[in-house]
Amino acid sequence: MSANLTATTEPDRTWATGNDDLTSRFARRNDVFGPSIWTEILNLFKHHTDPIYFGDGSPDKGMIPLAKLKEASAEAWASAPDCLGYGEQQGYEPLRHLIAERMRPLGVATSADRILVTSGSTQGIDLACRVFLEPGDVVLLENPTFLGATEIFRSWEARLVPIETDDQGMKIEALEAALIAEPNAKMIYTIPTFQNPTGGTMPIERRQRLVDLARARNVAILEDDPYVELRYDGLAVPPLAAFDPNVVYLGTFSKTIAPGIRCGWASAAPDVLRLLLANREVSDISNDRITMRVVYHTADGFLTGHVAGTLDVYRRRRDTMLNALSEVMPESVAWSKPDGGFFVWITLPEGMNATDLAIPAADNGVIYFPGHWFFPNHDRYNTIRLSFSTVPEDRIVEGVRRLGETIWAAG
Amino acid sequence: MSANLTATTEPDRTWATGNDDLTSRFARRNDVFGPSIWTEILNLFKHHTDPIYFGDGSPDKGMIPLAKLKEASAEAWASAPDCLGYGEQQGYEPLRHLIAERMRPLGVATSADRILVTSGSTQGIDLACRVFLEPGDVVLLENPTFLGATEIFRSWEARLVPIETDDQGMKIEALEAALIAEPNAKMIYTIPTFQNPTGGTMPIERRQRLVDLARARNVAILEDDPYVELRYDGLAVPPLAAFDPNVVYLGTFSKTIAPGIRCGWASAAPDVLRLLLANREVSDISNDRITMRVVYHTADGFLTGHVAGTLDVYRRRRDTMLNALSEVMPESVAWSKPDGGFFVWITLPEGMNATDLAIPAADNGVIYFPGHWFFPNHDRYNTIRLSFSTVPEDRIVEGVRRLGETIWAAG
Repeated sequence: MSANLTATTEPDRTWATGNDDLTSRFARRNDVFGPSIWTEILNLFKHHTDPIYFGDGSPDKGMIPLAKLKEASAEAWASAPDCLGYGEQQGYEPLRHLIAERMRPLGVATSADRILVTSGSTQGIDLACRVFLEPGDVVLLENPTFLGATEIFRSWEARLVPIETDDQGMKIEALEAALIAEPNAKMIYTIPTFQNPTGGTMPIERRQRLVDLARARNVAILEDDPYVELRYDGLAVPPLAAFDPNVVYLGTFSKTIAPGIRCGWASAAPDVLRLLLANREVSDISNDRITMRVVYHTADGFLTGHVAGTLDVYRRRRDTMLNALSEVMPESVAWSKPDGGFFVWITLPEGMNATDLAIPAADNGVIYFPGHWFFPNHDRYNTIRLSFSTVPEDRIVEGVRRLGETIWAAG
Repeated sequence: MSANLTATTEPDRTWATGNDDLTSRFARRNDVFGPSIWTEILNLFKHHTDPIYFGDGSPDKGMIPLAKLKEASAEAWASAPDCLGYGEQQGYEPLRHLIAERMRPLGVATSADRILVTSGSTQGIDLACRVFLEPGDVVLLENPTFLGATEIFRSWEARLVPIETDDQGMKIEALEAALIAEPNAKMIYTIPTFQNPTGGTMPIERRQRLVDLARARNVAILEDDPYVELRYDGLAVPPLAAFDPNVVYLGTFSKTIAPGIRCGWASAAPDVLRLLLANREVSDISNDRITMRVVYHTADGFLTGHVAGTLDVYRRRRDTMLNALSEVMPESVAWSKPDGGFFVWITLPEGMNATDLAIPAADNGVIYFPGHWFFPNHDRYNTIRLSFSTVPEDRIVEGVRRLGETIWAAG
């Protein structure tokens, strides 16, 4: 601080002890914020000296292309200071072109002018809420689904209608029934590929029917697709956005580069994109401009090959987890067999409570995400989400063994 | 894209031509978005081959500490990949400590746990709206004020009540009358130091009275303080946050480092900070984690001295602008004499329309921001905002000469 910034008059500090009156003036939307799940998780870490943690929704540290990122950072700074003013609210144009190019092989016909670069796909969800949702509007979503998304919808005072889900995503009959029961439903939120938390992928026929149903009733579709590039088996299924250009599609570099690099995107029809951008400008103006260049230089001509090179590691970890589960779990326990992504979803026998079990499991050195967090109504307690993405194979075997031991002991 | 991502089934493209039905489903809050002022500005650039641009609200490119930023970037990447996962939602802790340290000489007793790092202070305004504003809530603000802020408040469906302002900021009698007329007013938004657009600074007595009034009526104060470090004359005046710990204070590195580096902060009382953070987590999770480290390493032990070193340049530009105005303007034209910041505010004779004049001015090679943008009701047309921060002295002289010529011709 320069010398002339020193205060020359002491303000009256009568109130310096603080006062809580403003709490009565908070907006109603804030009523949804409860204690953070991270507090619960951190508490679980206190139960064991070396717990095996199956909670991460992140890529493995070893898969982050660090050397390339550093190189890309040097390239990005080479274009400074010209990129250090205000600007690029829609996103660095070469990056938008690159994103559009990367979406084409998925079957999505988009273009740079239909892309908005976001600070991760979380921001994409928030911006879509700003565009579509009034308080009380109905959002249909998978039961279970990504906890972060339900928290965003709740903060927009949406009414959440969970749709029954199996290992192929939303059951279309359940969706149709919900659309009849809620004729004013505004939005369907879905993670159709390697879903979080179930790992399931919606087959092409269901995708077509989902899009048809939404179209017929003029319901917005918000497709969250963070894991699409992480396929270990089977053939690609086109995103919903390939079936209908009105789908608002969210992508991210969080799973292919790193989540601490805040960079994702939305692809949308021009009318929607215009409002996503307008809302972006009143949220935080733009992404960090250097970061967008770092992502561009990392992705350009490199990322596709890099991601392909990581698939073997993740595939082996998934297989290791599935095999270990087969070896240790009682017959009454079932689990998903995902073709990609980061998650295996475990269903315990009815009546067994995975939330309560998290404490003995932590005592036994294994930490997982209790499944009830992922049910928008928090009304099911016999499921567990395990992530294999950041855990080495030997630790996966040992962690699943510890988990099996805990479940046997409880059963 | 890896080979297995190629779509194997062609989706039905019956609708691929698009459909606009979703436009009927947009939320009401989006009604506020009109055409961008940037379109108008870009159009003005077409009028002349070498226009002198007085529009920037940015630091000069030459003042950006580029060598230090590159060094800081290398340091930041040295802590990767450990900082590349999800995390640090409240902000990189050493950066929060540094910010609290930088605020202490201003007279504000804050601490790292009361700081939230934001993607620029724009995000701070948005988050404060999320915490406090219901649709229809009244926000009192300076008339004129920062256009970006009024757009954020409008997107939250606030009712804006502009308060008469002179060269010392809000007139306290006008504020008091407005608080009586609007007993439910929720928030006062103010830029008390080197205000945008007027350049005016609120003296200490007014600050104390403003804080008293707000306190007595339990109205939240949102203090936007981007220019405080850029003082060229006179003694520092403590921020409102120095008078009352309940003030929500917004700071930014956009004017001292660079706006393309998206990094600012909010400092608030614990109850408010908790909700700012909760809303941040459902907006975009966190700042880019590398960017926070770049800002930290740039600021640590360097930024104060760097900023002090830029003051001479800005002071000379301001003086050059004020002298040039004295030389060329008709007596009927008045302007502010700011002690800091980036802006001089010109008042033309009543009846002269600075918005209309922008076109002949552009034809004559000078571009400014018409003042009506800054009045929340867009109801005054005889003012102009000139920024001197990015224009070399010879260009300032020439630009003001061109502007004077245009005004004389119109007068």
